[in-house]
Amino acid sequence: MKEVENLHARYAHALDDDRLEDWPNFFTEHGVYRIATAENEARGLPLPVVYCEGRAMLRDRVQSLRHANIYEPQRYRHIVSSVLVEKIDEKRAQSIANFLVVRIMENGETMLFASGRYVDRILLKEMLYEERVVICDSRRFDTLLAIPL
Amino acid sequence: MKEVENLHARYAHALDDDRLEDWPNFFTEHGVYRIATAENEARGLPLPVVYCEGRAMLRDRVQSLRHANIYEPQRYRHIVSSVLVEKIDEKRAQSIANFLVVRIMENGETMLFASGRYVDRILLKEMLYEERVVICDSRRFDTLLAIPL
Amino acid sequence: MKEVENLHARYAHALDDDRLEDWPNFFTEHGVYRIATAENEARGLPLPVVYCEGRAMLRDRVQSLRHANIYEPQRYRHIVSSVLVEKIDEKRAQSIANFLVVRIMENGETMLFASGRYVDRILLKEMLYEERVVICDSRRFDTLLAIPL
Repeated sequence: MKEVENLHARYAHALDDDRLEDWPNFFTEHGVYRIATAENEARGLPLPVVYCEGRAMLRDRVQSLRHANIYEPQRYRHIVSSVLVEKIDEKRAQSIANFLVVRIMENGETMLFASGRYVDRILLKEMLYEERVVICDSRRFDTLLAIPL
Repeated sequence: MKEVENLHARYAHALDDDRLEDWPNFFTEHGVYRIATAENEARGLPLPVVYCEGRAMLRDRVQSLRHANIYEPQRYRHIVSSVLVEKIDEKRAQSIANFLVVRIMENGETMLFASGRYVDRILLKEMLYEERVVICDSRRFDTLLAIPL
Repeated sequence: MKEVENLHARYAHALDDDRLEDWPNFFTEHGVYRIATAENEARGLPLPVVYCEGRAMLRDRVQSLRHANIYEPQRYRHIVSSVLVEKIDEKRAQSIANFLVVRIMENGETMLFASGRYVDRILLKEMLYEERVVICDSRRFDTLLAIPL
């Protein structure tokens, strides 16, 4: 479904352009955003690294990020591929996709920051995430400073 | 052709989810899976790094991988892009695509594992690989332990 | 727009296959190719790292690259994702896309070479770039030896 790929693309560009304030608007009013590790998911441990429910909470998260002491300015680049979409019912679709995020430090140094899988539930008419679960392959990552994935 | 991109996506997710037993089912009964290096391909040397013909041989390979002494558990993430599809005849299409594979070790360390090009011949009705050639850019890679690319 | 993604894919494969001589043909006769850094773009500094206008100049650049003393042979792999296309007028579309370029040295060493965003203006009937701006995330990169991005 082209529209779903388009949603993922707009989401990626919003983050990579540092338009964090737009980020909550990709979710439904009570939408869920969750970051988990592949390890915990495989073990059935529902312990998210990050859990936000509802736009208000997502907005709070953006606020904290904006006011955090981030010593080193940084830039991110999202690569999203292998998108699979399946209808759940008349109103919803599930999507899975692979991602890679590269982090670029102020001094120009570039590193692989995160890789993993997006597992999404999407409201089709509104084209919004009802739930976006970010399952990271590695359990090593910087959650305090990290922008949304 | 959307269906071909979909096939590549399902293939990537099967490997990244460690559903290796599903892997042979992406090929036709006598389908060929071959890993080569860009260097050898450029020189016209048809020396594959890995060569499997037919589902039975692919299944054997999965068996060996499952029983190999892999000291360090690991995870892979495939990124596939720039897919080009061209019809060969009524039944077949050729597809080329770029790929990047990231390997994530147990301790969370992430590295670029492989990059290259998929050159595929696909049976359109069945949506299966009649041949999948994986042309790796680097000649340095770990063939013994490596899962399929 | 499938045709635009197809154009980006053909462009990537031409470079990754070292068909540099084909590269100017992806542009209109007076097409512009520009490499900038995200930092300069954000500051509104229109100082390109590379600026070429017209196919003749693009051809010259290929010539210089072919005759440069490149001590270490190398290979590139482009990954392109999150393509967004919007019509500007009847004849033109704007496209943005994320990219990642991996460089593979003769000895097999693989590194993240560049990441960033393509911002393109495309003539739809001809399916050619009227302008391709490559905005690199990092300001650290090797412009002398670098092949086109």
